[in-house]
Amino acid sequence: MGTDAAPQAEVEGAIQAARERLAEVLLVGPQEMLKRELGRHHEARSLRIEIVHASEAVTMEDAAAKAFRRKRDSSMRVAARLVRDGEADGLISAGNTGAVMATAKIVLGTLEGVDRPALAAVFPTSKRKASVLLDVGANVDCKPHHLQQFAVMGEIYYRVIFGIHRPKVGLLSIGSEDHKGNELTREALGLLKHLPVHFVGNVEGRDLYNGSVDVIVCDGFIGNVALKISEGLVEAVSSLLKEALSSTLSSKVGYVLSRKAFRDFKRRVDYSEYGGAPLLGVKGVCLICHGASNSNAIKNAIRVAAEFAEGRINEKIERELAIRSLSQN
Amino acid sequence: MGTDAAPQAEVEGAIQAARERLAEVLLVGPQEMLKRELGRHHEARSLRIEIVHASEAVTMEDAAAKAFRRKRDSSMRVAARLVRDGEADGLISAGNTGAVMATAKIVLGTLEGVDRPALAAVFPTSKRKASVLLDVGANVDCKPHHLQQFAVMGEIYYRVIFGIHRPKVGLLSIGSEDHKGNELTREALGLLKHLPVHFVGNVEGRDLYNGSVDVIVCDGFIGNVALKISEGLVEAVSSLLKEALSSTLSSKVGYVLSRKAFRDFKRRVDYSEYGGAPLLGVKGVCLICHGASNSNAIKNAIRVAAEFAEGRINEKIERELAIRSLSQN
Repeated sequence: MGTDAAPQAEVEGAIQAARERLAEVLLVGPQEMLKRELGRHHEARSLRIEIVHASEAVTMEDAAAKAFRRKRDSSMRVAARLVRDGEADGLISAGNTGAVMATAKIVLGTLEGVDRPALAAVFPTSKRKASVLLDVGANVDCKPHHLQQFAVMGEIYYRVIFGIHRPKVGLLSIGSEDHKGNELTREALGLLKHLPVHFVGNVEGRDLYNGSVDVIVCDGFIGNVALKISEGLVEAVSSLLKEALSSTLSSKVGYVLSRKAFRDFKRRVDYSEYGGAPLLGVKGVCLICHGASNSNAIKNAIRVAAEFAEGRINEKIERELAIRSLSQN
Repeated sequence: MGTDAAPQAEVEGAIQAARERLAEVLLVGPQEMLKRELGRHHEARSLRIEIVHASEAVTMEDAAAKAFRRKRDSSMRVAARLVRDGEADGLISAGNTGAVMATAKIVLGTLEGVDRPALAAVFPTSKRKASVLLDVGANVDCKPHHLQQFAVMGEIYYRVIFGIHRPKVGLLSIGSEDHKGNELTREALGLLKHLPVHFVGNVEGRDLYNGSVDVIVCDGFIGNVALKISEGLVEAVSSLLKEALSSTLSSKVGYVLSRKAFRDFKRRVDYSEYGGAPLLGVKGVCLICHGASNSNAIKNAIRVAAEFAEGRINEKIERELAIRSLSQN
């Protein structure tokens, strides 16, 4: 029930995913509404899609903690219970991010060895690959050892989802030299150096988009600012470009001729190809999608959630963190 | 001696500024080299440009503190001395940012009431106006009262340079509600609310580009990350767009037809129109330009430096902070 176009985007995304046999889908929400929406698609009957009733929905205005306490039959909470009880492998929501995170953390619990789950966002780069930034908003005030755990989780996620053997991991700072940074990053740097990952040291904001590093670790405050600055800049650039291109006849004609190029370009910078942000560190799979997600974004989130479960990311995280804590004691 | 194309960009920028009578310019650096460069422009003789000799130059590789101690006759240090001694109103450099900041802080000293100078960056927005973000790198670990002083300085700067009577000031956070943020922003919020500025509360990363707020305050670590993420994203978008537009014949033709539109667009997002980042809070004027600055950026920096001095920004900052500290005691 989370997208701006709910439940249409969710239902169509589920149909696309089921058609491509990416997963079996449980649609959680008001039964009658979902039935009606599914009924508009003839092929839905032959696909592996089920409806699970939930009488309530958390809105964007609900405060996270309150939503969790008061709306015990919300679609996100019912979905989380399905994961906790082993009825589903993963939970996908495009709803209120704070509420989804709180619900997943409380209902699913955290993995062994994880102090704090982290939200990871996938960014396009100018090379033909993605970069992953975490945490982008689950934890505003972090300690150095949290960043260390984020690095382990992010590296495993990148390895499994993007099929890269040894992804490069960097620490977001304001210069590549070791002494550059704030108190948190200077302390975290020492810890990250001792991880068995391909750690490249401090990286800068620009490295998020140039493909020089695969996984970038930061606290949730700065990660969230980074995410929203990027969204804001892309919006501003699009609107300025559109304005410039519609200003004269020749530029209008030019725009029409290069329309396909613009579509390709948009597709490359479109987050919906990457299918949502995983909340790493909870038991089970939890992917959080943008409220503006279309059916393609939902479909891709379903694909990523299936790959997440099949790739046994959580087992790997627990194993890696257990080895580390054994070696520290 | 600071730009990638030094001293050409500096000298040409100085000539343009002097031609437009924006200011009298002192060019500081190796006398012979500057003479030769000036000699290439016939009109230079009739313009108010002087050369002041400095035998050394700080490089991008020099550490800030070391550069200050060792290179006593560096062009930036000689320029700072000219400002301190009243021979010049302001100092402009496109050199090593850390070294310029350290030099300006030590040689010029800070204004009465200012604990820490802050570097302010100007961003284009989708509306026809700019927004100012500070601090973007002078102070990595800040206390709430530093952010309060940044707000005062940034507001006065915006008022004078952009001629807006009551600019809107926001605090960079991860949500507009008061409880959203980290320890620093939650404490700073209370202080900012009591300033005699048009404070709009917490703002998000996206607000940097949508023109909904004029001045945004944050600590220097997050500000620097924000600045570099923006630069990185603009580079990535440009390269992806260029790639897409050169992929087929029709898109190439389209690009040619809309070339003027692209130029206009680039000009709108081009930082060089805004002429460098002011280091607010030092005695005198100090503007730091991007190393990639062209002569247009240098010219605009000279224009802004002159407006800064003529607009008596520093007097206003001292007066405002004195009123505040009186009212607090």
